Amino acid sequence: MTRPVVYVLNGPNLNLLGTPQPEIYGYETLEDVKRLCTETGQEAGLDIRFHQSNHEGALVELIHEVRTEADGIVINPAAYTHTSVAIRDALVACDFAIMEVHISNVHRREAFRHHSYVSDAATGVIAGLGVEGYAAAVRVFALHKQTEN
Amino acid sequence: MTRPVVYVLNGPNLNLLGTPQPEIYGYETLEDVKRLCTETGQEAGLDIRFHQSNHEGALVELIHEVRTEADGIVINPAAYTHTSVAIRDALVACDFAIMEVHISNVHRREAFRHHSYVSDAATGVIAGLGVEGYAAAVRVFALHKQTEN
Amino acid sequence: MTRPVVYVLNGPNLNLLGTPQPEIYGYETLEDVKRLCTETGQEAGLDIRFHQSNHEGALVELIHEVRTEADGIVINPAAYTHTSVAIRDALVACDFAIMEVHISNVHRREAFRHHSYVSDAATGVIAGLGVEGYAAAVRVFALHKQTEN
Amino acid sequence: MTRPVVYVLNGPNLNLLGTPQPEIYGYETLEDVKRLCTETGQEAGLDIRFHQSNHEGALVELIHEVRTEADGIVINPAAYTHTSVAIRDALVACDFAIMEVHISNVHRREAFRHHSYVSDAATGVIAGLGVEGYAAAVRVFALHKQTEN
Amino acid sequence: MTRPVVYVLNGPNLNLLGTPQPEIYGYETLEDVKRLCTETGQEAGLDIRFHQSNHEGALVELIHEVRTEADGIVINPAAYTHTSVAIRDALVACDFAIMEVHISNVHRREAFRHHSYVSDAATGVIAGLGVEGYAAAVRVFALHKQTEN
Amino acid sequence: MTRPVVYVLNGPNLNLLGTPQPEIYGYETLEDVKRLCTETGQEAGLDIRFHQSNHEGALVELIHEVRTEADGIVINPAAYTHTSVAIRDALVACDFAIMEVHISNVHRREAFRHHSYVSDAATGVIAGLGVEGYAAAVRVFALHKQTEN
Amino acid sequence: MTRPVVYVLNGPNLNLLGTPQPEIYGYETLEDVKRLCTETGQEAGLDIRFHQSNHEGALVELIHEVRTEADGIVINPAAYTHTSVAIRDALVACDFAIMEVHISNVHRREAFRHHSYVSDAATGVIAGLGVEGYAAAVRVFALHKQTEN
Amino acid sequence: MTRPVVYVLNGPNLNLLGTPQPEIYGYETLEDVKRLCTETGQEAGLDIRFHQSNHEGALVELIHEVRTEADGIVINPAAYTHTSVAIRDALVACDFAIMEVHISNVHRREAFRHHSYVSDAATGVIAGLGVEGYAAAVRVFALHKQTEN
Amino acid sequence: MTRPVVYVLNGPNLNLLGTPQPEIYGYETLEDVKRLCTETGQEAGLDIRFHQSNHEGALVELIHEVRTEADGIVINPAAYTHTSVAIRDALVACDFAIMEVHISNVHRREAFRHHSYVSDAATGVIAGLGVEGYAAAVRVFALHKQTEN
Amino acid sequence: MTRPVVYVLNGPNLNLLGTPQPEIYGYETLEDVKRLCTETGQEAGLDIRFHQSNHEGALVELIHEVRTEADGIVINPAAYTHTSVAIRDALVACDFAIMEVHISNVHRREAFRHHSYVSDAATGVIAGLGVEGYAAAVRVFALHKQTEN
Amino acid sequence: MTRPVVYVLNGPNLNLLGTPQPEIYGYETLEDVKRLCTETGQEAGLDIRFHQSNHEGALVELIHEVRTEADGIVINPAAYTHTSVAIRDALVACDFAIMEVHISNVHRREAFRHHSYVSDAATGVIAGLGVEGYAAAVRVFALHKQTEN
Amino acid sequence: MTRPVVYVLNGPNLNLLGTPQPEIYGYETLEDVKRLCTETGQEAGLDIRFHQSNHEGALVELIHEVRTEADGIVINPAAYTHTSVAIRDALVACDFAIMEVHISNVHRREAFRHHSYVSDAATGVIAGLGVEGYAAAVRVFALHKQTEN
Repeated sequence: MTRPVVYVLNGPNLNLLGTPQPEIYGYETLEDVKRLCTETGQEAGLDIRFHQSNHEGALVELIHEVRTEADGIVINPAAYTHTSVAIRDALVACDFAIMEVHISNVHRREAFRHHSYVSDAATGVIAGLGVEGYAAAVRVFALHKQTEN
Repeated sequence: MTRPVVYVLNGPNLNLLGTPQPEIYGYETLEDVKRLCTETGQEAGLDIRFHQSNHEGALVELIHEVRTEADGIVINPAAYTHTSVAIRDALVACDFAIMEVHISNVHRREAFRHHSYVSDAATGVIAGLGVEGYAAAVRVFALHKQTEN
Repeated sequence: MTRPVVYVLNGPNLNLLGTPQPEIYGYETLEDVKRLCTETGQEAGLDIRFHQSNHEGALVELIHEVRTEADGIVINPAAYTHTSVAIRDALVACDFAIMEVHISNVHRREAFRHHSYVSDAATGVIAGLGVEGYAAAVRVFALHKQTEN
Repeated sequence: MTRPVVYVLNGPNLNLLGTPQPEIYGYETLEDVKRLCTETGQEAGLDIRFHQSNHEGALVELIHEVRTEADGIVINPAAYTHTSVAIRDALVACDFAIMEVHISNVHRREAFRHHSYVSDAATGVIAGLGVEGYAAAVRVFALHKQTEN
Repeated sequence: MTRPVVYVLNGPNLNLLGTPQPEIYGYETLEDVKRLCTETGQEAGLDIRFHQSNHEGALVELIHEVRTEADGIVINPAAYTHTSVAIRDALVACDFAIMEVHISNVHRREAFRHHSYVSDAATGVIAGLGVEGYAAAVRVFALHKQTEN
Repeated sequence: MTRPVVYVLNGPNLNLLGTPQPEIYGYETLEDVKRLCTETGQEAGLDIRFHQSNHEGALVELIHEVRTEADGIVINPAAYTHTSVAIRDALVACDFAIMEVHISNVHRREAFRHHSYVSDAATGVIAGLGVEGYAAAVRVFALHKQTEN
Repeated sequence: MTRPVVYVLNGPNLNLLGTPQPEIYGYETLEDVKRLCTETGQEAGLDIRFHQSNHEGALVELIHEVRTEADGIVINPAAYTHTSVAIRDALVACDFAIMEVHISNVHRREAFRHHSYVSDAATGVIAGLGVEGYAAAVRVFALHKQTEN
Repeated sequence: MTRPVVYVLNGPNLNLLGTPQPEIYGYETLEDVKRLCTETGQEAGLDIRFHQSNHEGALVELIHEVRTEADGIVINPAAYTHTSVAIRDALVACDFAIMEVHISNVHRREAFRHHSYVSDAATGVIAGLGVEGYAAAVRVFALHKQTEN
Repeated sequence: MTRPVVYVLNGPNLNLLGTPQPEIYGYETLEDVKRLCTETGQEAGLDIRFHQSNHEGALVELIHEVRTEADGIVINPAAYTHTSVAIRDALVACDFAIMEVHISNVHRREAFRHHSYVSDAATGVIAGLGVEGYAAAVRVFALHKQTEN
Repeated sequence: MTRPVVYVLNGPNLNLLGTPQPEIYGYETLEDVKRLCTETGQEAGLDIRFHQSNHEGALVELIHEVRTEADGIVINPAAYTHTSVAIRDALVACDFAIMEVHISNVHRREAFRHHSYVSDAATGVIAGLGVEGYAAAVRVFALHKQTEN
Repeated sequence: MTRPVVYVLNGPNLNLLGTPQPEIYGYETLEDVKRLCTETGQEAGLDIRFHQSNHEGALVELIHEVRTEADGIVINPAAYTHTSVAIRDALVACDFAIMEVHISNVHRREAFRHHSYVSDAATGVIAGLGVEGYAAAVRVFALHKQTEN
Repeated sequence: MTRPVVYVLNGPNLNLLGTPQPEIYGYETLEDVKRLCTETGQEAGLDIRFHQSNHEGALVELIHEVRTEADGIVINPAAYTHTSVAIRDALVACDFAIMEVHISNVHRREAFRHHSYVSDAATGVIAGLGVEGYAAAVRVFALHKQTEN
């Protein structure tokens, strides 16, 4: 029996995670986040696939590929949260649940970070939990899986 | 050894949960939510105390009492999310982590639900996961506890 | 045969009616309004129950109680018209018709009185008729009753 | 002894009433509304005169004519509610009471229908009662008449 | 076999077409536009009926008449695009497709021309093609006709 | 030798001038204004033609007729000042000078009267001088005439 | 001879005064503020009565009771300053002078604290003087008293 | 018999008049304007006193001096029109009529020139007539004088 | 003799056309659109070249390449319509006509789709005609060609 | 032992105090205010120096001079409250406490008086106490002095 | 051969430079800035004349004087950047290049400092380089000079 | 001894520089700008590395690479200035000084060009100097270097 597949997609500058501005984003690197997601996925019986891109168009195309083979997406659109209608439109074209994650509490930061083009296209939103927000988002799909059984 | 105490506070109309508008809030009642929180707390080694009030002032005073004996608050301020500076001010006076939870994805609803007086006073925000958002919020405190050990 | 039950709910400061600012609200007291509603109800074959509260939470809970036993609500939310999402949410959870009444013509007063959180949750709105607006609102339910017979 | 004269004025597209969009405006035609107003007027001892026009200027001139011979106006300015300063200015020039009526609950519709150029020039506003709103508005003048006697 | 009937309605000041401001509207007169529409209609098997009025109310009534006998409307509401809820309401009451046409590119002109009360009531919008926009709009109905066959 | 022709155009409700609200518009009637304009015109060697209409479309068509035979327009668009793009567009199509006149000081009145669709299409604007504003506006054309000689 | 009675009313969270956020509100407790007001009142020949509530409705009712027996109100509405039309309406129904006090300089804090529903219903406003603002507000009534003598 | 005294006050940069930007302000210098005002005053039996200052404070003080000895003010506040509450406050303290004049049609220029702090403190406003606007404004006082006689 | 070359450029997510959300975009695929454009081009004597990209930068560079060899562009910028100043700047640098096309009627969708960075840089705009909008846009260049001959 | 020096600075038009608009500002003159401040200062052991200027630049320079020799400033910036960043910048450069005073309750007046460039640069704000606000502000410095002793 | 003359004009509070808030403006005094400008000017073959004023009107008049004898202006309008239309109008009347300089990065400061009335009247803007911004601005005129040779 | 390394990064469409719209951007090509920067760098003892990209993601990644080996960045983000939070976030992660350059005076162009996501993340901003702005920006790093020595 195959495990459900959950893609974890990361937006621009998240490859730098853990290096600059640890007071905002914490000390974990993106590699740490990947490990956390994979482990959380394993505990939850999910197959986690992890990507990062700094290109809006590449993220759009990642979502296109994922559309037909994923059972869910966890996405941290980072800066594109606030500026990308293209990513929103790609997400709207998916039939499965989508979890939007932000490491920092965006509501405490600049006013332009208070609006997300993704939130009303997503199923749920998690912000401010640090990298643990990824794990919480991954677990949502384990819950979904249980319900379906 | 005493377990950390986490208060789960619920705002106005949540006592009706599961009755009207299940298409927005789902079919679970507040009693179900309480059971879910307690179970999640037990698994996580947390002592969960659960309250609901329809009164802004009563919620303010609940937070005051909790200030000196809690290790964390999970709060779903419901309608007061969008109108209560008093609850925000009470939360700001707490030293521990605060998780804001919304059952529905507020970003898909009326424009006045897109602004929260609580979010930038909270540590993190979870929205749109249905009542599972409470469990996810409770688990955050388990993580905090582990880190401290 | 039992008569349909219509609750008439009154918000903050309406207990003062007839005392201060008669140039805005007229000279009738809330007791006069109650009598007017009861008499109009009797003519129309309706059982009128009349309440006033200065507490947002108490009004929310009044609406909760009324939900299962009323056939309609006439509500003058007074100041809470402009600030209470909690009362709106409670009203949205009711299945019967709701009439919003304002004694004064709110459109002639301060700009913040031009917006109502209740209007689009109500069936209809009556403003500026003085206390006669209550009678007009009560009569709406007589009409409803006739249509159903 | 002559009965007080109340004009019922109807704005653009109301001649179509009952034909398109019954889910918004109901199934009654303007002829039905006229009959309702006349009957309500007769019960209330009022002489009802009923007009409709699709022309802003014609409505302005109707109000001019009415100024010297009416005891009151019931007006449903329809689309001109939101765009006509000219009708507002004509109404402001009248000395008697003016009732603004909307068949649908305008607060539930497009944002541009939430503003009325007429409301603060009118004595009172009734919205969302369907065509019964006309009857309620006509009855206001019966009350006025009684008070004066 | 009767040909489908398409009305081409023109708003205020379009009777002046070709005289003032040719740098904005071009050199063709409204008579030229009528000829263009008729010829395009003939090629496309459509019966074109062409009207212009400077009166908002007259345009509303034209649409009313057309409602029961037309298969489509091409409308250039000109100045009323930006100010007429009455024309919008009349169009919304039609069951067939509606094409909104603007000769000039309204997006290059004053800010108040960037908003149209008609666009979301129309099926489609064509702007900036000069008088050829009328022909393009007429052809849309030829396509509709073909699809139905 | 023919005298220059100046049209004085008056918008909606100005036929009521001198009757209602003299505290805003003064005690002169429109007939008084016509006499004032004619006399001022005679002194200044101008042929004055005076019109009033309550219809936006009629005012648009008056301006169309005037375009080819007038040497100037004095216009008090009254309520249409704030709502008519159609009148603005008609005025923009004229080649001669246009004077916008308001009897009252519109800047002291409701906020919606502070914006004029006509002002930047006019040559000059005179407000708050009472009916003398018309005379001042007429005299502007006398000055123009002298300059040309 | 009885001394004038001045009520000092305190809004939500002020019972915590001196505990959290001393960098904003200072180190004095509400008990200290009460003592300060009483002493200042004594020096000024005023009878001071001191209340605090976290409930909007309770504050409304306190003002109602006070209406008939007070000679003035000093009110620090705290969070309700920015959200309560109900308290404003209660204050507007009082005939005596009302002093609005804020311990911190609200203009240096979040934007939503820059607007007060109370200020234009109050006689005067004092902000940023720390708890001394209460004493300054109490002294205003001593001055009033002297003027009347 | 002394003639009424009318002060003509000019704001910043008007000393440059006729030099830069003649396409906006025309070719007349401030000296020409002074001559025009004086001549118009003489014809109208008025004593004209003419001042210009680039200093907001000096203009405020000019108005103070003028308060007790003038019968009217014509003021072109130029740039201070849009930024000076101080000049507005000084004008509000005058008991006589005040005419605001602008040489250019401010409504055709930058958006910040569409708002005037002076207009609702003035009796009337004249804009866009070039320097002839001064003469028209001066003549207003002649009319006032005649009416008083 | 070479035929004029018209590029048809398509923005992000249009490669998915016909798959998700057919209720908004219809059932045709991008391949269908390409065929429609090519056929329409052939009838009209135009050489059509068809591209799609999900990358803003790639669209910018496509426009750069096209600048020197195209006779016109038809562009459906999709999501980038509302967010890309870069594409606008690239289009502004072209000397030939540009047609902006939207398959759906953007005016009926989310508010952020009502603004286009491209429209005032384009020659004309066509929205809401489904994929037929592309054919209509292509035909515009045939018309241009005829005029030049 | 030298007494602390407190400067009382007054902005534009305050030299007129007591003359025009006593219904807003009361009947006291600026000389009365000076006497009140001096007496209050003497009681409080403070050396009061009193200035008024109508010039923004002069007020800026007064603050510069005062910077090195004052122990505090009481400032009523009058009209410059709402328009002067220069005075704000000068105040920000001072190290001592600054009290902003307004005689009238600015919150009851024009909307533009609700914003102050000075308030968040000041220590505290007192408005609406009439000229007694000055005395209350002066006393603040007595309190400061005591605390330091 | 005479060297080109460049005026360096400084607005309010810049005479304090180097004293208060060095964390914003740095440690150099205005005398240091003058020396820097003079030296940079000498290297560049420019005659530098340096002024500072705290008076808006004085700055306006400085620009008037400079108009006929300068070859360029470097201006740091300081606080007047955000509030002075008068200085803007004076600058617009100059024919030579104008450089606007800000010592601090105004975009990092209060929102009201993000708008400049001067920027679109200036040739170029330099902000955030500390006092070196003056030198960079002066060098611009050296470049201009070279190009002309 | 190695020279400090300064990267000069150029955003979308700047590869076209000198070709279209020379009236806005001047006649120099990007190759000319590169030469100017290199020469200015050589004079100033700086190692200049020059890049251009039309891709937001590529610019983000360029900044990532540069982070560890550059001593400064000069960036002209062109269109991305106004739309890219991703570039802003990448710049914020750099520890060295950043100069934002715009060739044209953006304040004179469309309103959407008046806001920059980069400015408050940059050290300084230079706009409107044409391509010389690059040289001025490069020289800033020479100054920095001198200060450090």
